Amino acid sequence: MQNDQLLKQIEFLKEIDKVKYIQRKTKLLNSDRNENDAEHSWHLAMMAIILSGHSNVPVDILKVVKMVLIHDIVEIDSGDIFIYDTVQSHSNTIQERLAAERIFGILPDEQAAEMIAIWEEFEEGITDEAKFARSMDRLEPLLQNVSNNGGTWAEFGVGFEKVYEKKKVIANGSEALWDYSEQLLNDSVESGILKKQNA
Amino acid sequence: MQNDQLLKQIEFLKEIDKVKYIQRKTKLLNSDRNENDAEHSWHLAMMAIILSGHSNVPVDILKVVKMVLIHDIVEIDSGDIFIYDTVQSHSNTIQERLAAERIFGILPDEQAAEMIAIWEEFEEGITDEAKFARSMDRLEPLLQNVSNNGGTWAEFGVGFEKVYEKKKVIANGSEALWDYSEQLLNDSVESGILKKQNA
Repeated sequence: MQNDQLLKQIEFLKEIDKVKYIQRKTKLLNSDRNENDAEHSWHLAMMAIILSGHSNVPVDILKVVKMVLIHDIVEIDSGDIFIYDTVQSHSNTIQERLAAERIFGILPDEQAAEMIAIWEEFEEGITDEAKFARSMDRLEPLLQNVSNNGGTWAEFGVGFEKVYEKKKVIANGSEALWDYSEQLLNDSVESGILKKQNA
Repeated sequence: MQNDQLLKQIEFLKEIDKVKYIQRKTKLLNSDRNENDAEHSWHLAMMAIILSGHSNVPVDILKVVKMVLIHDIVEIDSGDIFIYDTVQSHSNTIQERLAAERIFGILPDEQAAEMIAIWEEFEEGITDEAKFARSMDRLEPLLQNVSNNGGTWAEFGVGFEKVYEKKKVIANGSEALWDYSEQLLNDSVESGILKKQNA
């Protein structure tokens, strides 16, 4: 019985190796090399651990770490959708829900249910843990774009208002990190790497 | 004051982006693409979370996750040393200690001390958390090599005895995972992807 559980867990752990091949639009710091979802998830987990003291309210940091480690696993099936995509919605697509059921469904039932629940909690963004986890997910590409002369903002002609709209949810998780982020956005307009208007 | 702490934390989080460039000897599952340390660390964290129920004793899983997420950060300065390297010791080199002090030392003092302590605990491998974390670190490349026709065993001519010696520490963290791993090693000799003798 335990062996049967273990075999399912190993099968899941092999399946998620594919996360390492999913390319994001954003690039590594000061680099023209795209980041992949595994690297991104690792970095968010490190951010969550290091920055947890800036959360607006105390959070269960293990849950936050689980959220950011698994939040992009569904992209094995559904692919990475660009946050500024105007056609496809970034999150909560039917395709992503099916992906969550297929991939986490490889695990033993109880663990599958736990992982799907954590993924859904992140997607919904309502609990304190989800809010803080989502702050991490918005902050990392901000640091990347600033280091890369505007990065995806410049590449895809995204202007200040649209970026500001997406980034201000950082405040839901951490006012301190939002103060820092808002300053970065203003500095980016000032220095010309973020345009006032969409292209 | 809080802002000063935050700036140090952000500087650290930018510095560790370099982990994404550190190539390991092992390759992704069924692949000829080398794994990097960020991908590896993400995968170990997922393994720790999913496989925690197989630990010989109950462990503080957040601490295990922290250990595996940070265990290779020192390689930014010291580089990846191959586990079967016969000249350089894999762990606990003076260079790695200096690296830990420099890189974690970017953080605010208290957090730097915490991270160095966790890294040292992993390196020493004495506590239950360190034992389980180290089991993860040994199990992942085993799965990779089996999927890649022997992978680094074949590439560097490493034989059964040497591999067995390195892998058997998995039992210190989890007898169940060692049973599974030992079977994989025996199967690998049987199928010819792991040679009885070193080349």
